[in-house]
Amino acid sequence: MVKSNKKVNAAIIVIGNEILSGRTQDLNVSFLAKWLNEIGVKVEEVRIIEDKEKDIVSCIHELKDKYKYIFTTGGIGPTHDDITSQSIAKAFNLSYGYHSEAYNILEKYYKPGEFSEGRKKMAKIPDKASLIYNPSSGAPGFIVKNVFCLPGVPSILKSMVEGIKNKIVGGDKILSKTISAQTVESEIAKSLEDVQSQFKNIEIGSYPFFRSGKIGVSIVMRSTKNDEINNCSKKILDFLSNKKIQIINRE
Amino acid sequence: MVKSNKKVNAAIIVIGNEILSGRTQDLNVSFLAKWLNEIGVKVEEVRIIEDKEKDIVSCIHELKDKYKYIFTTGGIGPTHDDITSQSIAKAFNLSYGYHSEAYNILEKYYKPGEFSEGRKKMAKIPDKASLIYNPSSGAPGFIVKNVFCLPGVPSILKSMVEGIKNKIVGGDKILSKTISAQTVESEIAKSLEDVQSQFKNIEIGSYPFFRSGKIGVSIVMRSTKNDEINNCSKKILDFLSNKKIQIINRE
Repeated sequence: MVKSNKKVNAAIIVIGNEILSGRTQDLNVSFLAKWLNEIGVKVEEVRIIEDKEKDIVSCIHELKDKYKYIFTTGGIGPTHDDITSQSIAKAFNLSYGYHSEAYNILEKYYKPGEFSEGRKKMAKIPDKASLIYNPSSGAPGFIVKNVFCLPGVPSILKSMVEGIKNKIVGGDKILSKTISAQTVESEIAKSLEDVQSQFKNIEIGSYPFFRSGKIGVSIVMRSTKNDEINNCSKKILDFLSNKKIQIINRE
Repeated sequence: MVKSNKKVNAAIIVIGNEILSGRTQDLNVSFLAKWLNEIGVKVEEVRIIEDKEKDIVSCIHELKDKYKYIFTTGGIGPTHDDITSQSIAKAFNLSYGYHSEAYNILEKYYKPGEFSEGRKKMAKIPDKASLIYNPSSGAPGFIVKNVFCLPGVPSILKSMVEGIKNKIVGGDKILSKTISAQTVESEIAKSLEDVQSQFKNIEIGSYPFFRSGKIGVSIVMRSTKNDEINNCSKKILDFLSNKKIQIINRE
């Protein structure tokens, strides 16, 4: 990964009726967001859409120039409802057909006689796409321009991301510090707003929680500048101390 | 809830940097999707966006006429990063200020002297909005036109939805049937595609799983027509039986 010393953003498109119906709990967004954060890419938008070609195409059209990177999850398997590959081809006006390297990978992956029609479908990707290798289950993902297409099964997706790290030019890493305190949000809202107004480059979030019968608030500071986060953190610790609010933990 | 005998759709807008950063796992989408499904409303799109006024406003503008109902989660608390109320006001060109009923509810909810500035902020909503009562923690949500604004904390959100059931005119309930079988997707892809082509009104999804060391596929049929689902299910059971594939369970 090359460092570019600037802000780099991304969007995630989750393709899947099973997420929209509530049948399946998405787990890929939080995994990808944290992983991207580590390499200096900030996820600024997520869309969860149906397995419909026109929705996928229009979503790609709307987002591809707005974000440096787009990640799609889901819809690259062997069944009729897996239509991500053909939809991405359509979105970029590319033809869609067998990719010789993907075909060879899959042919070798399966036992002789087991490379069925369904499995062959997974070798069909947009023309000129490059592959994302899959160490878990053979079937590759692919990259077209700034769009990275990954599978929906979380364990397989996780096994594939290391292979794309060197294709992503991240910016400054987004650092974060969290102070969790035994209080309620309204008790600290005014002081927190004052601190936010002094640190315009820091994103300060306030999140109430209820944990093992205790209520509290986690104050999260995010920025690419470590010094600023430390100064901001001091100001927050100061007002918490003045208000005699107990700190639960700092991370 | 009134039955309208047609398809009714919705979108969910999740407002929150903490979801986009991966710090917090969203749980509201699957809860709301399942709950809406029960009352005949199909979630067709989800967007997760940052706590930024311009993003909230443009998201509302893009979606409000596309879907019958819009649900927002998050950003209605007392801190500086809670900007959903003022953003919704802006999106609909409404003024934003104290709502007398919300003010009264909160004033009564807190002990004398504890109705602080931060807490008062939660009584500020768009002009003419109607309230969504909150049996858990006092602070109400609100409705502007077809936009229902709910909090981000899952337990509080859950406690509030019963109160909006009578404000939603659902369509036919979306029924579903699932057959889980001990197979892999590529083994059944062709047969499943054939069945799908015979049942255009049924949304058939295929989802591989790995559970207690076993691999399998869940085939999910969704439709508003019970008879069609039953006929479709028979065809699927037929081909699974012909292929000597073991059924794990049916639900």
